[in-house]
Amino acid sequence: MIVRPQQHWFRRLFVWHGSVLSKILFRLSLNIAMSIVAVLCFQWYEHLGVKLTLAPFSLLGVAIAIFLGFRNSVSYARFTEARLLWGSLLIVQRSLLRQIKSLLPQQDEAAREFAALLMAFSYCLKHQLRGTDITADLQRLLPHADLRAIETSTSPCNRLLLMMGQWLGEKRQSAQLSDMLFHSIDQNLNRLSEILGGCERIANTPIPFAYSLIVHRTVYLFCTLLPFALVPDLHYMTPLVSVFISYTFISLDSLAEELEDPFGTAANDLPLNAMCNAIEINLREMNDETDLPPAARPDSHYQLS
Amino acid sequence: MIVRPQQHWFRRLFVWHGSVLSKILFRLSLNIAMSIVAVLCFQWYEHLGVKLTLAPFSLLGVAIAIFLGFRNSVSYARFTEARLLWGSLLIVQRSLLRQIKSLLPQQDEAAREFAALLMAFSYCLKHQLRGTDITADLQRLLPHADLRAIETSTSPCNRLLLMMGQWLGEKRQSAQLSDMLFHSIDQNLNRLSEILGGCERIANTPIPFAYSLIVHRTVYLFCTLLPFALVPDLHYMTPLVSVFISYTFISLDSLAEELEDPFGTAANDLPLNAMCNAIEINLREMNDETDLPPAARPDSHYQLS
Amino acid sequence: MIVRPQQHWFRRLFVWHGSVLSKILFRLSLNIAMSIVAVLCFQWYEHLGVKLTLAPFSLLGVAIAIFLGFRNSVSYARFTEARLLWGSLLIVQRSLLRQIKSLLPQQDEAAREFAALLMAFSYCLKHQLRGTDITADLQRLLPHADLRAIETSTSPCNRLLLMMGQWLGEKRQSAQLSDMLFHSIDQNLNRLSEILGGCERIANTPIPFAYSLIVHRTVYLFCTLLPFALVPDLHYMTPLVSVFISYTFISLDSLAEELEDPFGTAANDLPLNAMCNAIEINLREMNDETDLPPAARPDSHYQLS
Amino acid sequence: MIVRPQQHWFRRLFVWHGSVLSKILFRLSLNIAMSIVAVLCFQWYEHLGVKLTLAPFSLLGVAIAIFLGFRNSVSYARFTEARLLWGSLLIVQRSLLRQIKSLLPQQDEAAREFAALLMAFSYCLKHQLRGTDITADLQRLLPHADLRAIETSTSPCNRLLLMMGQWLGEKRQSAQLSDMLFHSIDQNLNRLSEILGGCERIANTPIPFAYSLIVHRTVYLFCTLLPFALVPDLHYMTPLVSVFISYTFISLDSLAEELEDPFGTAANDLPLNAMCNAIEINLREMNDETDLPPAARPDSHYQLS
Amino acid sequence: MIVRPQQHWFRRLFVWHGSVLSKILFRLSLNIAMSIVAVLCFQWYEHLGVKLTLAPFSLLGVAIAIFLGFRNSVSYARFTEARLLWGSLLIVQRSLLRQIKSLLPQQDEAAREFAALLMAFSYCLKHQLRGTDITADLQRLLPHADLRAIETSTSPCNRLLLMMGQWLGEKRQSAQLSDMLFHSIDQNLNRLSEILGGCERIANTPIPFAYSLIVHRTVYLFCTLLPFALVPDLHYMTPLVSVFISYTFISLDSLAEELEDPFGTAANDLPLNAMCNAIEINLREMNDETDLPPAARPDSHYQLS
Repeated sequence: MIVRPQQHWFRRLFVWHGSVLSKILFRLSLNIAMSIVAVLCFQWYEHLGVKLTLAPFSLLGVAIAIFLGFRNSVSYARFTEARLLWGSLLIVQRSLLRQIKSLLPQQDEAAREFAALLMAFSYCLKHQLRGTDITADLQRLLPHADLRAIETSTSPCNRLLLMMGQWLGEKRQSAQLSDMLFHSIDQNLNRLSEILGGCERIANTPIPFAYSLIVHRTVYLFCTLLPFALVPDLHYMTPLVSVFISYTFISLDSLAEELEDPFGTAANDLPLNAMCNAIEINLREMNDETDLPPAARPDSHYQLS
Repeated sequence: MIVRPQQHWFRRLFVWHGSVLSKILFRLSLNIAMSIVAVLCFQWYEHLGVKLTLAPFSLLGVAIAIFLGFRNSVSYARFTEARLLWGSLLIVQRSLLRQIKSLLPQQDEAAREFAALLMAFSYCLKHQLRGTDITADLQRLLPHADLRAIETSTSPCNRLLLMMGQWLGEKRQSAQLSDMLFHSIDQNLNRLSEILGGCERIANTPIPFAYSLIVHRTVYLFCTLLPFALVPDLHYMTPLVSVFISYTFISLDSLAEELEDPFGTAANDLPLNAMCNAIEINLREMNDETDLPPAARPDSHYQLS
Repeated sequence: MIVRPQQHWFRRLFVWHGSVLSKILFRLSLNIAMSIVAVLCFQWYEHLGVKLTLAPFSLLGVAIAIFLGFRNSVSYARFTEARLLWGSLLIVQRSLLRQIKSLLPQQDEAAREFAALLMAFSYCLKHQLRGTDITADLQRLLPHADLRAIETSTSPCNRLLLMMGQWLGEKRQSAQLSDMLFHSIDQNLNRLSEILGGCERIANTPIPFAYSLIVHRTVYLFCTLLPFALVPDLHYMTPLVSVFISYTFISLDSLAEELEDPFGTAANDLPLNAMCNAIEINLREMNDETDLPPAARPDSHYQLS
Repeated sequence: MIVRPQQHWFRRLFVWHGSVLSKILFRLSLNIAMSIVAVLCFQWYEHLGVKLTLAPFSLLGVAIAIFLGFRNSVSYARFTEARLLWGSLLIVQRSLLRQIKSLLPQQDEAAREFAALLMAFSYCLKHQLRGTDITADLQRLLPHADLRAIETSTSPCNRLLLMMGQWLGEKRQSAQLSDMLFHSIDQNLNRLSEILGGCERIANTPIPFAYSLIVHRTVYLFCTLLPFALVPDLHYMTPLVSVFISYTFISLDSLAEELEDPFGTAANDLPLNAMCNAIEINLREMNDETDLPPAARPDSHYQLS
Repeated sequence: MIVRPQQHWFRRLFVWHGSVLSKILFRLSLNIAMSIVAVLCFQWYEHLGVKLTLAPFSLLGVAIAIFLGFRNSVSYARFTEARLLWGSLLIVQRSLLRQIKSLLPQQDEAAREFAALLMAFSYCLKHQLRGTDITADLQRLLPHADLRAIETSTSPCNRLLLMMGQWLGEKRQSAQLSDMLFHSIDQNLNRLSEILGGCERIANTPIPFAYSLIVHRTVYLFCTLLPFALVPDLHYMTPLVSVFISYTFISLDSLAEELEDPFGTAANDLPLNAMCNAIEINLREMNDETDLPPAARPDSHYQLS
């Protein structure tokens, strides 16, 4: 993961934050159109005794900001937890390989076998979370015999964990690992199991639908009615102020929607490809392999996929 | 668990979010009726010197939004914790079976016996939390001898845990598991005990009643008085703005009420049936069984029960 | 713990939430009296050039709502942590007895002895937290020899933990438990020690006094001055609006005060009696005892003590 | 720790909360003086076209309340974490002594030796955090040989931990403790190490200075300018309302400053003396010593030092 | 780390908080210039019917304060977590050395070897996080043989962990450590692995860019338009009030930006140099070395680097 270079505060104001901005540009245009309608028709409908004032919208705006703030922190918490789990994945896989290498010091082949299972696990988790096809990566990493069992499983990652457990069990059976050391390594397998279950939980349990719906709907209705409430005070300035307020609310609602599902492939989602790549480089390097795959590079928008 | 397909932001505005909306539709109608009363009677009661202005309601509205925001985050935390516990249930059960299968590699019968106890535990927990009858599921999974002890217990899940412990104890007594390995597996039983206790805690300890009552009551009184405070400014627009503000507050209060009890069967509650089903498929698959039960499918509203 | 039946949203508005409401009724009456004074004297003191407007109170009201919201979440966190600790007490005690029963399978007498120590621990913790007398419960549960050591101790719960440790130590000395298994059980004793220390911490460390004092005082001063700020706008409606706003602030301040000390015997405090009773039933049932004590039942207000 | 008796809500309003109130009394007087200046000079400077209105201060006041709320919760989190660490200190020290006493049952002398190291650790931690002299307490508790090594160390608490580790290591070397039991006790030494490091972290890392500075400065500037914004509306009532709003903001800012450094000796800081005293009584009592030191008693303001 | 001396509240108002203030001074000057433009041109553009009022800015200001509050707490959480990880680094390294010294009591040379690896790890982590060159520190600490393997690694810290694991593995192979004790020490290596992974996660995963961008941009646009909204009410006082409000918002936005990246070298970032120095002194002192490096001293602004 490569971090975007620090920008001057002024240039930063005009950066194109692609994914979110392009999504909401059309909605903001609608808002401007609505503002112009409000300005043009103001005299006519005020004549009819129809009137909106800013005071109730002020109250509502603050209430919506509070609820939107809550929704934002919930979405961000999902993003953070997902990142934490993938961070732990790297941590636990390094620890597992370190244990194998210090406890079975002369067995380079065994370490490579086990490292292959670990790498397959991380690729498999990525494909499972994104709903993409695992075959290519598995064929690259695992011997043919293991492939079938994984591909036919309803839960390939869990099957891989089971295979790691059985691999350890065989080392114990052949007295290469004592019960104590089996336990020590097995605890890290338990942690892999927690990571797998945690990712599945985030992927399968969205924020309660009614929640995001209520906030989403309230934000849009608020932004639609806002110009009519602003026009009595601001006249020609209505579009400017209205689109500014709408930008604040709609862009945050839209970003919250994006962060809510951190395993997707949108710009602000987690770069699972780069993470799997980093794990592979790390593990291969620990095994003193020399033909490491190249590190993932960000695209021209400093984005990793 | 199947996730609702991502919707276009515009269509999303008009989605029917059944459970919450149908509940509050009547209350919103009452609010509209009250608004119409306010518009019609405004001149008459203003004549009497009775007057409400928006300023104090603005202050109160923001205060209520803050307290409602707190109530929402508390309810959501209960929902999240419940989901976390059921996620851990899947994780721990997979880990337990993985341990059994790597440590007792040739004993397929033992693994099936233990898996049956695990599956019975998850079904039993579901029935205990929802207050439904456990007999059918237990009969399907367990041998007749174990049934009685569980059914007559005041705490069937805990009895199942005790049986798992004794099953492990027997393996230790017969020297199939060393003390070290007993400890390693027993730690995961401790985790099951934590999950059981955690679910019971959420189910048995509602948010302090006075809390939800004060917020509930304040929200409704606020929405009832609001039209009278809006009418001096907004005249004929009062019903529109009043029902919008009321929708924001009442729907969030109502959703908070629903999430507060995450083990129920309302639309936004946890799909315990689907989760038990997923656990069963996972464990059976680890035992290489081939007649897996079909995965749970969502209904036409993308809801799992 | 028995949960209050779900109520219809409308009936819920008129439920009597005893403890908090009765406490603040007098204070709300004072507020109404103050409002009437404000309405009656308004003309006279306005004449003197003394004037209060709503705008500064609006600012102050929102600020107080934010601080009160913080105080609420702090009080609620104490309540939640206390509940969590008592939930863990049940969890750990079940786990301990499960371990004893699987590791010393034929020794029913030993299991009963140990269960008695566990039950005594939970009753003792309750009495220590509430400052009530432990003698009756201890006499019911423990042999006479143990009683004296506990009663003369400055920290009876900790003495009980020490006795459990020594009980385990004897089993180890007599080679009934290996060092490994001693460690496995002793870890759960460590958890009991954490629960004991956690409860003592909550009971002995109130929220910094200045904190609750500042919020308490500010809320009351605000509610006292409010009628004078409302009366220029609202005239005869002042008492209604003033008492409504005061109800929102004072009831939340009052509830926060109650939750702050979760081990008391007020209506919203934790039902420690019922929890000790539940633990006793659970442990006795695990030992296959048949004369279980009756489960605690809520009173007519759905309250457990 | 002795808890302040529950006070009637009305008397509570007039309690003297010494430390905070006395600190800010002078600042509030300044605010009143500024208000009187504002009232007296209002006509004159309004004449010059200089005017402040409440509306921008309303916006600013709410923003400052939000940031102050954040600062408060950060300071309170530091206080809570510090209390948690000292709570864990008591918990872990009890657990350690319990383990020693159950595993080395006949060796009363060894238990006393180890308890002395534990007590020295807690006193030493207190002196290190408060920057006071440790010699007196160490001389009271430890044999002369150990004293020098601790006193000359740059990190006396850590040296004590090392001595405990070596004490355990000797018991292992002389085969009184198996490797398993060494590990079991050593885990609790790791926890002591975490407590020590956690306290050092809180003591050495203040809240980023710019943070408290910005909030502090903004609060004071706000309170200074406030009278000038209030006076056009409130005239003679300006001092009353201005000092009330200032009290709310300044007292919370001031309390946050006090809680930020929980190991000091101000009124709302942690009573480390009383805590060390409680730990000593607990450990001595576990060793069946009879000449326990007297429990710490609060002063006339219910304060422990 | 040396803490800034407590300052009098009044002097504190005028302290120079370098890093943040100097950064934003230019931006505040721009704001003042804009205010002066607004005051001068007010009559002219009001004439054109162009008008801004404070009411919509009030609503927007509160909304932005809420979102900025969220961004602040997210940035602060990153800072806190980073500090926690470096605190744990000290804790775990002390624990590891304590274990080595109690389990291999006569082997001073081994303890020094291991301590050198630990110190190299902390320096290496610092250099990796700050992107500086590790060679000098490694040459000072490690024998020549180890240097190459680390310098050529793509992940030097992880390589060091692997070397520690292999060092332990050799002690186990040569029967100086039993499997149990290997496990006990290895658990602390797992913790080092967690610390390494945690720091990498914070360094590599910024807050979602769209997030900080939206808040940053909204804050600046708000401050730019604010003078035009203030001028109709405040006339000549506009620059004063406008720059005050802007200071509050911009300084917090700017500080949040600084805390977001806690491993940098700005004034409010973590003093990694001083921390590495403290770890080195601690570990050398535990090995009874006498030529300890001098403790890091803060510069004239009480800053450590």
